[in-house]
Amino acid sequence: MANVVFKAVAEAKEGLATKVVSRDFEITLDEPADLGGTDTGMNPVEALLGSLAACKSIVVRAFVKKYRINLKSIRVEVEGDLDPEGFQGINKEAKIGFSEIRSHFYIEADNSEEEIERYIEFVERNCPVQDTLTKVAKITHTING
Amino acid sequence: MANVVFKAVAEAKEGLATKVVSRDFEITLDEPADLGGTDTGMNPVEALLGSLAACKSIVVRAFVKKYRINLKSIRVEVEGDLDPEGFQGINKEAKIGFSEIRSHFYIEADNSEEEIERYIEFVERNCPVQDTLTKVAKITHTING
Repeated sequence: MANVVFKAVAEAKEGLATKVVSRDFEITLDEPADLGGTDTGMNPVEALLGSLAACKSIVVRAFVKKYRINLKSIRVEVEGDLDPEGFQGINKEAKIGFSEIRSHFYIEADNSEEEIERYIEFVERNCPVQDTLTKVAKITHTING
Repeated sequence: MANVVFKAVAEAKEGLATKVVSRDFEITLDEPADLGGTDTGMNPVEALLGSLAACKSIVVRAFVKKYRINLKSIRVEVEGDLDPEGFQGINKEAKIGFSEIRSHFYIEADNSEEEIERYIEFVERNCPVQDTLTKVAKITHTING
């Protein structure tokens, strides 16, 4: 067991725009106008789906040799259902976050359908972002002045 | 109940680099060299933490009027513990994703400590990304040629 600590920082910009920094990298997240933002970047729930899609795409590519997959191309599309009336406080019955997340793998490989299906089952189990979404981590917070 | 479908697509680039597209926005995710990538962007688990940090920062700013918080500044730092030996297949006992996620709110506001604490408790409950990490969504996938 050798835990690595990963880290990201959100710095507030104008309106709801947010600069996200991790190591030397920076992205801008925001909200569209109908959710109160100025639409200068994808929003956090879209970035969450993007991190999931990218994670699966990376796992697909990273293990092809081990699983003898002759990969030609991979694209991963992820959709999620979310009712904004939940976090907006309009509907107390609505879930705050995503109620359903669907991943669509568009994969071309010189392998049988069964080999590809088995490989994608492995990818689904072995994706760190998906694991974080399905096996709840310990979550804590601190407040600092 | 009015579900909105949010979407993101991961397109494979060179090595493990990945272009993530959502609506008109695009970010590049990758892996550092020690995880097999070419380090052209933050990696998916860092982007996941970044989406969480940004989501909390946005919820902090979006509800200040309703909760009478006189906000002066907000920065949110998020750390997560992950053992790469899990997804690398080296240690079968290791969790694949994050085992613990810690959020640190750096907040300045003209309010009492109690008011700020109560407000952050609300933010912790009302953040769509955090809700997705703590209340598991239905997860499905399809495979397409």
